[in-house]
Amino acid sequence: MKPVDLRSDTVTRPTDGMRKAIAEAEVGDDVYGEDPTVAALEAEVAELFGHEAALFVPSGTMANQLALTTLLQPGNELLCDADAHIVTYEAGAAAAVGGISTRTVVGSPAGALDVDAWLAQVRRPGYHALPTTAAAVENTHNRGGGSVLPYDDLVRLRAGVPALHCDGARIWNASVASGVTYREYGALFDTLSVCLSKGLGAPVGSLMISTAERIERARLRRQQLGGGMRQAGVLAAAGRYALAHHVERLADDHARASRLAAALAEFDVVDPSTVQTNLVLLTVSDPGAVVRAAAEQGVRVGVFGPQTVRAMTHLDLDDEDLDRAIVVLSSVLRG
Amino acid sequence: MKPVDLRSDTVTRPTDGMRKAIAEAEVGDDVYGEDPTVAALEAEVAELFGHEAALFVPSGTMANQLALTTLLQPGNELLCDADAHIVTYEAGAAAAVGGISTRTVVGSPAGALDVDAWLAQVRRPGYHALPTTAAAVENTHNRGGGSVLPYDDLVRLRAGVPALHCDGARIWNASVASGVTYREYGALFDTLSVCLSKGLGAPVGSLMISTAERIERARLRRQQLGGGMRQAGVLAAAGRYALAHHVERLADDHARASRLAAALAEFDVVDPSTVQTNLVLLTVSDPGAVVRAAAEQGVRVGVFGPQTVRAMTHLDLDDEDLDRAIVVLSSVLRG
Amino acid sequence: MKPVDLRSDTVTRPTDGMRKAIAEAEVGDDVYGEDPTVAALEAEVAELFGHEAALFVPSGTMANQLALTTLLQPGNELLCDADAHIVTYEAGAAAAVGGISTRTVVGSPAGALDVDAWLAQVRRPGYHALPTTAAAVENTHNRGGGSVLPYDDLVRLRAGVPALHCDGARIWNASVASGVTYREYGALFDTLSVCLSKGLGAPVGSLMISTAERIERARLRRQQLGGGMRQAGVLAAAGRYALAHHVERLADDHARASRLAAALAEFDVVDPSTVQTNLVLLTVSDPGAVVRAAAEQGVRVGVFGPQTVRAMTHLDLDDEDLDRAIVVLSSVLRG
Amino acid sequence: MKPVDLRSDTVTRPTDGMRKAIAEAEVGDDVYGEDPTVAALEAEVAELFGHEAALFVPSGTMANQLALTTLLQPGNELLCDADAHIVTYEAGAAAAVGGISTRTVVGSPAGALDVDAWLAQVRRPGYHALPTTAAAVENTHNRGGGSVLPYDDLVRLRAGVPALHCDGARIWNASVASGVTYREYGALFDTLSVCLSKGLGAPVGSLMISTAERIERARLRRQQLGGGMRQAGVLAAAGRYALAHHVERLADDHARASRLAAALAEFDVVDPSTVQTNLVLLTVSDPGAVVRAAAEQGVRVGVFGPQTVRAMTHLDLDDEDLDRAIVVLSSVLRG
Repeated sequence: MKPVDLRSDTVTRPTDGMRKAIAEAEVGDDVYGEDPTVAALEAEVAELFGHEAALFVPSGTMANQLALTTLLQPGNELLCDADAHIVTYEAGAAAAVGGISTRTVVGSPAGALDVDAWLAQVRRPGYHALPTTAAAVENTHNRGGGSVLPYDDLVRLRAGVPALHCDGARIWNASVASGVTYREYGALFDTLSVCLSKGLGAPVGSLMISTAERIERARLRRQQLGGGMRQAGVLAAAGRYALAHHVERLADDHARASRLAAALAEFDVVDPSTVQTNLVLLTVSDPGAVVRAAAEQGVRVGVFGPQTVRAMTHLDLDDEDLDRAIVVLSSVLRG
Repeated sequence: MKPVDLRSDTVTRPTDGMRKAIAEAEVGDDVYGEDPTVAALEAEVAELFGHEAALFVPSGTMANQLALTTLLQPGNELLCDADAHIVTYEAGAAAAVGGISTRTVVGSPAGALDVDAWLAQVRRPGYHALPTTAAAVENTHNRGGGSVLPYDDLVRLRAGVPALHCDGARIWNASVASGVTYREYGALFDTLSVCLSKGLGAPVGSLMISTAERIERARLRRQQLGGGMRQAGVLAAAGRYALAHHVERLADDHARASRLAAALAEFDVVDPSTVQTNLVLLTVSDPGAVVRAAAEQGVRVGVFGPQTVRAMTHLDLDDEDLDRAIVVLSSVLRG
Repeated sequence: MKPVDLRSDTVTRPTDGMRKAIAEAEVGDDVYGEDPTVAALEAEVAELFGHEAALFVPSGTMANQLALTTLLQPGNELLCDADAHIVTYEAGAAAAVGGISTRTVVGSPAGALDVDAWLAQVRRPGYHALPTTAAAVENTHNRGGGSVLPYDDLVRLRAGVPALHCDGARIWNASVASGVTYREYGALFDTLSVCLSKGLGAPVGSLMISTAERIERARLRRQQLGGGMRQAGVLAAAGRYALAHHVERLADDHARASRLAAALAEFDVVDPSTVQTNLVLLTVSDPGAVVRAAAEQGVRVGVFGPQTVRAMTHLDLDDEDLDRAIVVLSSVLRG
Repeated sequence: MKPVDLRSDTVTRPTDGMRKAIAEAEVGDDVYGEDPTVAALEAEVAELFGHEAALFVPSGTMANQLALTTLLQPGNELLCDADAHIVTYEAGAAAAVGGISTRTVVGSPAGALDVDAWLAQVRRPGYHALPTTAAAVENTHNRGGGSVLPYDDLVRLRAGVPALHCDGARIWNASVASGVTYREYGALFDTLSVCLSKGLGAPVGSLMISTAERIERARLRRQQLGGGMRQAGVLAAAGRYALAHHVERLADDHARASRLAAALAEFDVVDPSTVQTNLVLLTVSDPGAVVRAAAEQGVRVGVFGPQTVRAMTHLDLDDEDLDRAIVVLSSVLRG
């Protein structure tokens, strides 16, 4: 019996339909700007968010870092969440590659947007001090438990910062959960990154979204970072398929995550009301032990912090898989 | 009548004794390691803090940045105060020049060391996330109003982080105010920077202090940053003079700052009990107006934030100057 | 009639067999190290060159830059050809991203390895000067007309430098043309990059090859540059197919390039004896005019310099295509 | 008897007159832009070279690096001499700190400006390749034996590059030797660095010279590199004294260097006709042995390369010292 893998929504494998789309992709040399499938995907995603242009790249990290370097010069200051992907999971790239100084704000609770705390950290030009050049949010917020940043908070933050980036790797989940449209989100941000290989189930690929001018600068910078790909249409075709077939179904992932949280609530490891999308964080005393015990029974979850286990629902999991996960995790937590 | 300049303790001019020391300095080519006065100063300062070695550099910023690059590689994470000099006043150098990612902690009140908040932000290795490599404190804390970080808090923080740097530009003031010795401070930190041209009144120069191995690496890095100076003994002589003559008298600066705060307390702009060293922060609605009005009457203070004016006492101010500052500032604040 | 595209060997589209391999690829999450096809490709390529390990990345630029950062620290000096891909076509990445200082050597003729000129530029440690930390060659050499670096010259260079990288984007062509085995090449270099999407015809992907220790460091750095991909097996499957089916046939490309050069020799634009692999450089007075005139007749070549046109043979061209190219280019050059 | 130190013109110690100027310097806080002596020096030097502005910094390396970062962005390409100070003696700063890619040209002989070789390496925009953004020359050329770059060559080079920097650490020597005025030199370059602590004998300090706009950007960057100094007037006063008293006398240094070369010519270690300024390079089989043997007899020279010894004349050497150097070096070379 194949394991039920709840470690991440990145582990999904392409479906048969997606594989067919990949195999039949019309391609060209994208470094020469001649891959029609990449061009179509870029245009489609830019349109979706109401921006002028988009750029296809190998990873969410690259999409974020390209966006940041169009908003900030080396030595500029970025305001961001202390648990954001860009400070936690990108190997220090903002500073190491972009020379960008980060000012971090602690959310309370994690994943929430404490707008007052953010605005208190905005540094105005003058006073010989380094001013805030841009801010970045993450929506949904991974380390915040897949939380959706409240739209009104985003509007308020937007008004108080010179420029705003959104790490929208899981903005699909945010939109499905909140009903805020992509275009409404798009209007809030100077730049966005979106990912096709998390909830949407494509094998590889993210996009940066912004003005045509910024996208052109990002294209040159992409070459410098080694992100230029030739017949990338084989990946973009999967992305287009995912956009056409895998967005609405995210609601199923969310429902399953809620069901999982509800089932495990009796063990005092999670408050089901905090589960907003496809991510369930369990607070336990020994995450490594829980992960190992569950794995022995064919259910994979991940250590996410000194006292945290993460479980995510996704395209490769159905109700039966979830039932099995509930049985196994309950048994482990009971033990 | 010359203005009374309370803008900063960096504005002091060398005394006659110090000028004499400069003029008579024995010098050599320090890039070749042959300046005897620089060597003597470096040895003296290293000894004072109980470390193996020290390195003379043109500025506190360079001393801080050299220290950081011996503790952190590009892409590593530094934990520091959100109002620290290294994030506020060094033009983003940690990221732009060192590639160092900063995680900032908000003190409460500013200048205090909320050790629990710091420890909550320490990231351990593992979990695929970027771990905390080092932390940095500033003592006394400039934007915190010249506050002295409590020794016991420093001890507790030290135990919870992999490495610790001290921006000790005004550590002389901290020691004089707290009675903690330089050697006790030195024992807490892997690297320190100290400055000779603030309270001590030398024209130019700071030192980085650490192990002999780190100082050797910093020496090469100093060349890369353009901080190597030839007959730097003319500056080091002033520094040696300052160490011999201008440390104990910092108590006078502190007393004058307290006197200034006490005199201005009636205007509800400062709580005198918060003044620990030579720095007085005044909370006012229009700092620019206060600064201009005082300047017109021959007293210079500085805008320090949207609602903050800073006044500092120093070597070039005597009791008479302070009397005049009190009269003028009282008049301005009353108006 | 579809155009005959001789601009680059990067423009090839996946064959039906390759598309089938892509569609059926067994995949996993490679950021978790769980993609079996990526792992198999990495092992296969490492073995081919007699090295311990390899790392799959989105582009040749990333493979080169990752390799360089395992050999050189920021501020170290790299010796390389003045026309190398790493200085010409990677948007300054070595310096901008890696902080690596480049010392360039002019080949004579371009593409040849003037070993004495290289050795004269090696800087030994000492004398307060920046020493040479590593050197990099490109084989075959793109701007040198697809030239194969003589094996004996490489052996001699290897003996005179502390470390040596090979940009082997087209090392497949070098081996096929020279008979030197991949393993013999592998033994010369500390690190190599190889590309699957040039002569081999895969849509996307390159590999860095080196010791297991360097590959582990490169893996972390790849994350920082945004080169981590999830189900990258869809790309790696194409690469494995290319290695199995498209290497030996490079001899056909070489033969066709020679045939093209021979046919155009009468116009004094190329010396056929200089054509060693799949690349033909034509010296003309107005490259733009040649390119435009040929394009109008359905043959695409590229401007490669102020007086140079480049034509490359590859997988998507057969003898009939070449005949047509010869007719068109002859007509253009005659005109 | 004190040693005769010919290792470098950087070893000079301030004269009594200069020490007096230092001791009496009028100073202020230069970080606030209030040091009158620094301001006067900057204005004087800018005027001398016919530029709008200048910036006082701690070292020639910083002056060079600041200038380069005003001409080039990270990832841009700089064309420079393979033996230039900026690639040889600045610890890789251009790449490590500025992200600047260097393309090096080998002079023939070293120190000469082979303009054709330089122009052949200029890369024009277009062709997807990295274009040349700026070039840098060094005049006089240290590793080229203190050679003066011919004015007509500089004019020709200037016409062929987009921007041109001059490392003029010893441009005083160049002007004295060639008769080309500072203003004529100034007109050739977008940015220059000049040094006060080599032939001019000041203890510390260099200046960057350029437009007011570039100097403002350099001022911010200086803060980032840690080059901001407070009462820097103590150093600037020495510089002003040096400009007033130590420039014309460089002709004496040049005459002494020529006399030294003439005296040693009989040992076939130097061609006296190559000595143009204050620097003599001796070609010997074992530089270390020569340096040690001379030092034992009280004459210090330096190892400058695997077969090269360097001797420089300067302010602290008189004819008697030179006589002694000739006697000792002759004895060593004879032995």
